[in-house]
Amino acid sequence: MLIRKSDNNKVSLAGHYTLRVGIRPLLLFFVIIAFFYFHLTAAGEELKSTSFNLMPWPVKAEITGGQFRLAENFYLGGEVKPGHRVFRAGTRFMSRLAGRTGLFFEQDYLAAQEISNSTKLFYYFERPGQLVPGEDESYQLEIYPGKIELKAKTDLGLLRGFETLLQLLSADEQGYFFPCLRLEDFPRFTWRGLLIDSSRHFMPVEVIKRNLLAMSAVKLNVLHWHLSDDQGFRVESKVFPRLHQLGSDGCYYSQAEIKEIIQLASELGIRVVPEFDLPGHSTSWFVAYPEYASAPGPYQIERKFGVMLPVFNPTLEKTYKFLDRFLKEMTALFPDPYFHLGGDEVDPKHWKENPEIQKFMKKNNIPDEPALQAYFNRRLLKILAKYQKKMVGWDEIYQPGLPQDVVIQSWRGQQALVDAVRKGYQCLLSNGYYIDLMGSAEKHYLNDPIPIDSPLTAEERKLVLGGEATMWAELVSAETVDSRIWPRTAVIAERLWSPPEIRDVDDMYRRLKAVSLTLEENGVNHLKNQLMMLRRLVQSDQIKSLEVLAAVSEPIKGYSRHSQGKPYSSLAPLTRFVDACYSESFQARDFKRLIEKFISSRDRRQAEEIKSKLQLWQANHQELVAAATFSPVLKEIMPLSENLASVSRAGLEALKLIMNGQRFDQTWLQAKQKLLEEARKPVAECELAVLPGLELLFNYLKK
Amino acid sequence: MLIRKSDNNKVSLAGHYTLRVGIRPLLLFFVIIAFFYFHLTAAGEELKSTSFNLMPWPVKAEITGGQFRLAENFYLGGEVKPGHRVFRAGTRFMSRLAGRTGLFFEQDYLAAQEISNSTKLFYYFERPGQLVPGEDESYQLEIYPGKIELKAKTDLGLLRGFETLLQLLSADEQGYFFPCLRLEDFPRFTWRGLLIDSSRHFMPVEVIKRNLLAMSAVKLNVLHWHLSDDQGFRVESKVFPRLHQLGSDGCYYSQAEIKEIIQLASELGIRVVPEFDLPGHSTSWFVAYPEYASAPGPYQIERKFGVMLPVFNPTLEKTYKFLDRFLKEMTALFPDPYFHLGGDEVDPKHWKENPEIQKFMKKNNIPDEPALQAYFNRRLLKILAKYQKKMVGWDEIYQPGLPQDVVIQSWRGQQALVDAVRKGYQCLLSNGYYIDLMGSAEKHYLNDPIPIDSPLTAEERKLVLGGEATMWAELVSAETVDSRIWPRTAVIAERLWSPPEIRDVDDMYRRLKAVSLTLEENGVNHLKNQLMMLRRLVQSDQIKSLEVLAAVSEPIKGYSRHSQGKPYSSLAPLTRFVDACYSESFQARDFKRLIEKFISSRDRRQAEEIKSKLQLWQANHQELVAAATFSPVLKEIMPLSENLASVSRAGLEALKLIMNGQRFDQTWLQAKQKLLEEARKPVAECELAVLPGLELLFNYLKK
Repeated sequence: MLIRKSDNNKVSLAGHYTLRVGIRPLLLFFVIIAFFYFHLTAAGEELKSTSFNLMPWPVKAEITGGQFRLAENFYLGGEVKPGHRVFRAGTRFMSRLAGRTGLFFEQDYLAAQEISNSTKLFYYFERPGQLVPGEDESYQLEIYPGKIELKAKTDLGLLRGFETLLQLLSADEQGYFFPCLRLEDFPRFTWRGLLIDSSRHFMPVEVIKRNLLAMSAVKLNVLHWHLSDDQGFRVESKVFPRLHQLGSDGCYYSQAEIKEIIQLASELGIRVVPEFDLPGHSTSWFVAYPEYASAPGPYQIERKFGVMLPVFNPTLEKTYKFLDRFLKEMTALFPDPYFHLGGDEVDPKHWKENPEIQKFMKKNNIPDEPALQAYFNRRLLKILAKYQKKMVGWDEIYQPGLPQDVVIQSWRGQQALVDAVRKGYQCLLSNGYYIDLMGSAEKHYLNDPIPIDSPLTAEERKLVLGGEATMWAELVSAETVDSRIWPRTAVIAERLWSPPEIRDVDDMYRRLKAVSLTLEENGVNHLKNQLMMLRRLVQSDQIKSLEVLAAVSEPIKGYSRHSQGKPYSSLAPLTRFVDACYSESFQARDFKRLIEKFISSRDRRQAEEIKSKLQLWQANHQELVAAATFSPVLKEIMPLSENLASVSRAGLEALKLIMNGQRFDQTWLQAKQKLLEEARKPVAECELAVLPGLELLFNYLKK
Repeated sequence: MLIRKSDNNKVSLAGHYTLRVGIRPLLLFFVIIAFFYFHLTAAGEELKSTSFNLMPWPVKAEITGGQFRLAENFYLGGEVKPGHRVFRAGTRFMSRLAGRTGLFFEQDYLAAQEISNSTKLFYYFERPGQLVPGEDESYQLEIYPGKIELKAKTDLGLLRGFETLLQLLSADEQGYFFPCLRLEDFPRFTWRGLLIDSSRHFMPVEVIKRNLLAMSAVKLNVLHWHLSDDQGFRVESKVFPRLHQLGSDGCYYSQAEIKEIIQLASELGIRVVPEFDLPGHSTSWFVAYPEYASAPGPYQIERKFGVMLPVFNPTLEKTYKFLDRFLKEMTALFPDPYFHLGGDEVDPKHWKENPEIQKFMKKNNIPDEPALQAYFNRRLLKILAKYQKKMVGWDEIYQPGLPQDVVIQSWRGQQALVDAVRKGYQCLLSNGYYIDLMGSAEKHYLNDPIPIDSPLTAEERKLVLGGEATMWAELVSAETVDSRIWPRTAVIAERLWSPPEIRDVDDMYRRLKAVSLTLEENGVNHLKNQLMMLRRLVQSDQIKSLEVLAAVSEPIKGYSRHSQGKPYSSLAPLTRFVDACYSESFQARDFKRLIEKFISSRDRRQAEEIKSKLQLWQANHQELVAAATFSPVLKEIMPLSENLASVSRAGLEALKLIMNGQRFDQTWLQAKQKLLEEARKPVAECELAVLPGLELLFNYLKK
């Protein structure tokens, strides 16, 4: 919705006004915002609040005035046949448009999309796009009162354009419309990925499918699929069936399923880059094949998390024979020209303890274990080259002697990326995009593969292909994974697509909230699973008080959930309160902004708003206690709920003091600050996200 | 949750009390309810309110006193290996138990479930169950303070028992437990089915999978899979690939997917009976193969709904050659001994109009078109027999001359079933179980395949195999289908499993609400999709007023949505307000019960409760108008919302009169009754479910 989705009162009111007085002022309104925002965008300055909910923000756009009004006689047409990638994209486009508007479109867009006298939306492209890095994904969109034209070099560009058009859907009291405009768009980076870890927790086919759909909605174009690790080997191998039979607990993708996923990804313009993590992170392989490990077996599928000892033996010729046959099969299964072999976090213990390995190193002048890993990588690189694949690996694969035709994925820091680029390697940034760390959208958003102060030369910058969000799955299940990926990954998608100057955080959050809602139509359940999980915790639909608490709680950040006393394994339930909390509380963020505004304005209405929130939170504890009496699983969050009540009570006191201009006792302030301090300690692996806002209030009081 | 899920205050309070005073009185409490309910159950009398949320209700149970307390040292054990059906059921059981309780179980139940000193839950069975009608599904469950024993003749019985045990999970302030008891259970009918229509709207694999899981939770054991119809041919045929290539718009199940679904079903103890509807309902076949139709082509996939003209030509030998090769392929793909060939709703027009067909009939002494269909069926029956399959068909297949080894599925009425049984046919009841008609759970619940007044003899009754709920898919999509199947199908499951005497409607609703919540853990989104759909309608998360209206609105009943002006096709959006409404409003039912209670008691507190509801509904309209200003798709529901406001206002007036014992004006009453009358007219394909309750209020006033 173009007009009313804004959190910005001014714009909303403007929209209201124009709508009441008719269409002409609306045009003026658009021309004005066009002037303010689009020209500024094109000029590369920071965006101010607008009422557009585009994400990623396009490179260049110009509002031309007027509207294309949507009606049941809306037909789309191109010169493709059913079954073609764009035809199917057109079908999905129409179906989503009908879904949002309830319009019964006349066109049988499943059967034919040829251009005719009825056509309103024309789409054109010059050639089929190739699913390879560097492919043209640009598109131009022109919306006139009577027709819409979407043009692109490749059909991939059209897919991106359909998503933009859907994000432009607007409404007023008369009906639905698209604003007239001219828009040009293309990505900043060619590799815009999301890693999904299917090993630590298996992610069934439908998880991958719905996330592919959501990825395409924000123009991501690489699924990096982490398919093997200590906790599970997830691909059917026909050559070595014991790999998946013994290494997966029955949870693996059949080759038919993998082909189906690759097919869907291809229809969405998304590449699928598989990762088999070697030589470490490989316990699950050795359940069936202990003979390739560096220490004698037997091995069992790992249930715990962390860096494990099992590691391939890189000194045996049979290891390479085995991996050659395996990679021959897998490189044929996955058509992408790139193939990820992991290479991270190798514990050298088993290499050090194995006298045969040590003897081999001595004999071959391999000075240390990192050099042994480099030797292993050179061997694998040769195998991949034989099967026409380019190798991708994590930071650690970079070792002296590693050939340059390898892509390095930096997870340890921006500096690692700079170093690798300077050695001539193509690089991807993942550091800063670790969404499993439960950081804020803001943090990910401002993390740039090539920051403004990057020391890289123009030539070197070309080696930065893009980046990838990483959804490591130690603490997510098929039920919660969507809520950890979305909506935050949308802002990483924008960072990788849009010009680097687009970095207004408030405007990003405004758009993110809207985009989060529209993402739901792709089937991702990042929003809708929360209440279901709360219902399960109390085995009742009386969950109001739990909702209130969950809305201002967040899972603790980083990997500290592992050190809170609960020994996580891949069998541990991920169904507790902490799992139902969103990774970031928008309510808490809004609360902090409200307090900031209040502090600068001392506006009484804002004080009232703050007060009513604090009262709600203060009163909530008692209700939650009543609701959770017979839910032992909720016992652990009682202190969290109590903390919310007591800091809210303190906040109410502070607010009263401020409003009345009263003085306060130093002892009182110290006591309250101690209270906040106490409330900052994690409870049940959660933290109260409202504390930063409340701290502002107390800091203000101190001044 | 055993104790606190009750809507019955008395039982809940009793639970409270016992918990506060300790375990002993709790034992007493259980003994008492055991006496009252279980003995009554065993004796076949009607159930009174209890705090147990079992559904289907078991045949016989006896509370023995005490509890099995659940802790992290809970181990289950049997004598099966990983990969076995029961082993995997045990895994799912433990995982769901962990999911509800948040307990980090010590056992690695993915790797081993052998019996050891740690075992707390022992499961035993004598032999693997066969997935055929008549197989033994009985089980015995004994819960002691120190251990739990689950025993069955077949592993299928164990699957049923695991579900019962999960439904017995209880909690108090100390933690989770199972109540000690002895329980014996077995099904009344051997064929307890759900039909899912994948043709009218394609239902992706995950829809089928999650519904299989939900089916197994209420002990259903047959998925009747409607795979072809006018609107789509949904199965990959390797013998005639043009069938799915041209007949499905690309929406079909690959054979690999079908095998996977059959595999999952088998693990859940569910048979998969495919249906290919012949000779009518077959337009989609003729897109590729017009030569087997009774009228010349070309044919296109049908988009509209209803009884269509295209029909197979039963007079051509090549028709049977074609169907023979097709059925040879499909009978091999689907292992079930039964195979459904439809046979319903054949329009004889094309047969009458085709002179060759008429000639054939004359030549072969076939008097009329029903007889021609009987001829067709006899030919198909021979083909199926060749492939060792028993035929199932709808009512219409019964014609003189039809051999007796056919199962007839009655959809046209109870009498059709009685007639067919008396001719010696095995029968299934679907009449009364048409869940697409949007009827109440009560209606389905009280519909019995063998009602108390059935004229059938004991011998004849054996021919009634059971029944099937039918989820026809004209007006459901993958997004809404779960909310049309669940929770209502759970009461049909109870009707088909439990003794016929179990038919207390209030108690059924009490349990149904609880079961509906636990069904969510199987992935069905019957509850969680509603808010998502409401959010999409307003493109915002401000949906409170929409929720209020949706909670007391229902889709209009029967097939009248088709005649409300909107021309439904398989492309029409099923995303409007009506689609977001549940098929039955529990709130409205509770409201009616409240009014009933109030009328008999004239209790002031109940009046207050009624008043606050009416006030909420009355005030809601204004909020909804504000929320929906820029949602043209919601314009259609404004009169519905207005109606709710005005009947609520009238209700408040009536309530006041009653409470004050005031007299009223006859004109006033007539005006109000006219108002109710008006509000009864469907709006936007919805009806206000609170009207029956309000009518009671006005009827009372009239007396």
